[in-house]
Amino acid sequence: MSDRERKRGGRRGRQEAEKSATPAIVPFITRKIPEYELLDEEGLALIENNAEIILEEIGIDFRYEPAIALFREAGADIDGERIRFPRGMCRKIIQDSAPTTFEQKARNPLRNVTLGGKATVFAPVYGPPFVRDLDKGRRYGMIEDFRNFVKLTYMLPSLHHSGGTVCEPTDLPVNKRHFDMVYSHMKYSDKPFMGSVTHPDRAQDTVDMCKILFGEDYIQENTVVINLINANSPMTFDETMLGASEVYARNNQASIISPFILSGAMSPVTVAGTMAQILAEAMAGMAFTQLVRPGSPVIFGTFSSSISMQSGAPTFGTPEPSLVINGCAALARRLGVPFRSGGSLCGSKISDAQAAYESANTLLPTITAGVNFVLHAAGWLEGGLSSGYEKLVMDADQLGMMQVFANGTDLSENGQALSAIREVGPGQHFLGCNHTQENFKTAFYRSNIADNNSFEQWEMEGSMDATMRANKLWKKMLNEYEAPPLDPAIDEALLAFIQQRKDSFADSNI
Amino acid sequence: MSDRERKRGGRRGRQEAEKSATPAIVPFITRKIPEYELLDEEGLALIENNAEIILEEIGIDFRYEPAIALFREAGADIDGERIRFPRGMCRKIIQDSAPTTFEQKARNPLRNVTLGGKATVFAPVYGPPFVRDLDKGRRYGMIEDFRNFVKLTYMLPSLHHSGGTVCEPTDLPVNKRHFDMVYSHMKYSDKPFMGSVTHPDRAQDTVDMCKILFGEDYIQENTVVINLINANSPMTFDETMLGASEVYARNNQASIISPFILSGAMSPVTVAGTMAQILAEAMAGMAFTQLVRPGSPVIFGTFSSSISMQSGAPTFGTPEPSLVINGCAALARRLGVPFRSGGSLCGSKISDAQAAYESANTLLPTITAGVNFVLHAAGWLEGGLSSGYEKLVMDADQLGMMQVFANGTDLSENGQALSAIREVGPGQHFLGCNHTQENFKTAFYRSNIADNNSFEQWEMEGSMDATMRANKLWKKMLNEYEAPPLDPAIDEALLAFIQQRKDSFADSNI
Repeated sequence: MSDRERKRGGRRGRQEAEKSATPAIVPFITRKIPEYELLDEEGLALIENNAEIILEEIGIDFRYEPAIALFREAGADIDGERIRFPRGMCRKIIQDSAPTTFEQKARNPLRNVTLGGKATVFAPVYGPPFVRDLDKGRRYGMIEDFRNFVKLTYMLPSLHHSGGTVCEPTDLPVNKRHFDMVYSHMKYSDKPFMGSVTHPDRAQDTVDMCKILFGEDYIQENTVVINLINANSPMTFDETMLGASEVYARNNQASIISPFILSGAMSPVTVAGTMAQILAEAMAGMAFTQLVRPGSPVIFGTFSSSISMQSGAPTFGTPEPSLVINGCAALARRLGVPFRSGGSLCGSKISDAQAAYESANTLLPTITAGVNFVLHAAGWLEGGLSSGYEKLVMDADQLGMMQVFANGTDLSENGQALSAIREVGPGQHFLGCNHTQENFKTAFYRSNIADNNSFEQWEMEGSMDATMRANKLWKKMLNEYEAPPLDPAIDEALLAFIQQRKDSFADSNI
Repeated sequence: MSDRERKRGGRRGRQEAEKSATPAIVPFITRKIPEYELLDEEGLALIENNAEIILEEIGIDFRYEPAIALFREAGADIDGERIRFPRGMCRKIIQDSAPTTFEQKARNPLRNVTLGGKATVFAPVYGPPFVRDLDKGRRYGMIEDFRNFVKLTYMLPSLHHSGGTVCEPTDLPVNKRHFDMVYSHMKYSDKPFMGSVTHPDRAQDTVDMCKILFGEDYIQENTVVINLINANSPMTFDETMLGASEVYARNNQASIISPFILSGAMSPVTVAGTMAQILAEAMAGMAFTQLVRPGSPVIFGTFSSSISMQSGAPTFGTPEPSLVINGCAALARRLGVPFRSGGSLCGSKISDAQAAYESANTLLPTITAGVNFVLHAAGWLEGGLSSGYEKLVMDADQLGMMQVFANGTDLSENGQALSAIREVGPGQHFLGCNHTQENFKTAFYRSNIADNNSFEQWEMEGSMDATMRANKLWKKMLNEYEAPPLDPAIDEALLAFIQQRKDSFADSNI
């Protein structure tokens, strides 16, 4: 490269580079690398045994009469809301009918995702009441923010899934916002998405909207929505979540049964204790879905963080939750169900080095553990209180790297590159050799956030940090956004359904 | 915690917290977790076979007459500087005499480190001409900076090793600065350190200073200095490095034979091709040390990065170098020698999110690969052009996390925590239970950089990012630094030796 080219080349060079996207666009990752297993057979069996002790001796509270009735019929020991399960009962119910892998259909069939096995699916952050960007700082999320996150997620190839509550649209009434959230996923993206779980009626509304989008018969045969059912840890499931899960299971739609754990508060302060409790809770919840409808798709979920024993605040990206993710992934494989965990979690309020260290420290163990569904894979800030615009695109860049990492090492003849080594020989360089010329476009993952220019060029271009570059990127993307085509008749039917339902009851913020 | 305590508590609470250091202070990490192996037996054997093809058919250039003579005598095929090695020859020479593990002695025996096996040793950044801090920005490194990095490294328990050229002291003449560098490690720290490799005479000066510090007989029996010998990749070793390595080997001191690879320039653009070349180069270099003195300690080193195929700039924290680190660690285990690689590498000019993502993406694969000696484990910025004050303490915090991660999961009865789960039961919380009270001080890794307070408290305290907190931390540490005691007679002898040597030849910047 001449000096003249170098001088004017920085930006143009990068734009050229962006055109040749490095990782192939895939609907989800199929990992070619082995899972990393930190616990051996003996360790895993010990945790499984402890989970059975919890289920048999301590029991789980199900605050939902229909669940109690189902478990009574299945032979559990019922004591009010407390259910104790004979050893092996939950495991057997799950293994008798729950699918080891299943497909979630998207309205664009090219976007269908597989859950389970060697598949890994990335979905954005879920649940924050706040949003943050570099221009306006932190504020309550609005439906416009929600739509923006759906649009950006649609445009980011390393996010395979549109997610669910990408932020809370706090400008809409609590009891009606699910209509606008589900509609946004359906309208502004054609990737698979998640449904409402905050009330059984809202789950039913989600199912009814899916019937309009996909066809009534289609959804009884196919899973088109997956749904986050948190346990009220320790060892409790509440009526809202169980009711929503029941609606979905009855309609052959998927639940992620996720113990929500801040170790030290909702579980013991130790990793092994936390894992046993998570396994017990998850098995009880998954067994419930199989009693509602045997064979309905269900995912073993885990959200695990530690808390600061000084302030009580949750902490992220520390070693203990990584160990929990790794162990629980292995336990899910042994049970034979898909597994959800991980993400790009952090406690930082902003997308600084703390956020990045912590996110990477969560994400890489997620991939090497073999997690199947990765919620919060991009955009998470502040312990999940805030969805970050810049963080979303920064994390998505990292997800692209994970895709390449999960491909492992190419051992083909081209990968071995002996011809290149022979051609070049000692003391020369590989830049111009045939093998390099033939492979350079796809040889290395190319970040759209990182700046690898010289210090001088970086300084000349404004000494921007990663967040400032990400700020430019998401704005450019939103500017260029084009909605995927949607049959106008379906769109009208969805809007009519929403209007009719919204008119049928008063606004409320409960 | 009452509101009043909470209000005034933030800082004081954290100071209290810092007193109960979470990970035990250890001289080095002994990993209890298994190594993650991405390549199977077949893949590793393929790379080994290709390395033998390189050694046998292509050969390695040794630009050093004594090396050529040694290899000729050992039966290699000599063609000028080009040496071709009969299949298996280098491997056999290494396996016949190189130690699989060895100990590097420190002047404080509590700081001795083991190299090899399940041991992992962290050393700071090596080589940058520049330094950076938040107050003064980026500037050339000076001997004062060098001393500061040695002092900070001494005070950081997660750095086990004082390293070598923590920054270039550019205010000192090139041909004499090694005296001040080695002396700084000896004087301001009692951790093990690295010697000069920029000229055989400077290697000899290092050895002579070690004789003064440790005693002349002691160093013939013990390894007290380890030294970074880069290959001039591809497939070339130059006179300077070989001459320095020869001095060290003859004196029973350790060399790290490190192919220095920017894939696409010094090696093929593929991971498998790069690994084969690295193995060939490293085996040739290690064999040389064993011919100089059989049984002298030697480490298989790898520095691997990719280059941007647009600008030619090196990139870090991308997936391909992680795969290289992982594969080479397995190859070193099969060869039976200690392995050096990894670090907290990044291309970012500042300690922002790019720096942290990239550093974490290098460090975690380093740990899970089972790397024994991790140079550049803290402080690296800008592709190694700059040593960062803030980055040093930020990375060191991450190293502390790696220590906890490497301990794996505690499966003791206390770790299983069934008593806690029994005591608490469904729907309650674990904060006050006996098990939590007994374990909370050491339950979770506690970062000294991360802010996990509420958004409101963080904002009230100045909305600081991680770099700003790190800035306060390293200044506080330097303020509190106290030198480890050094026998005044030894100190005087060292200074006298340095003075005499410095007076014996003219300053030069070559």
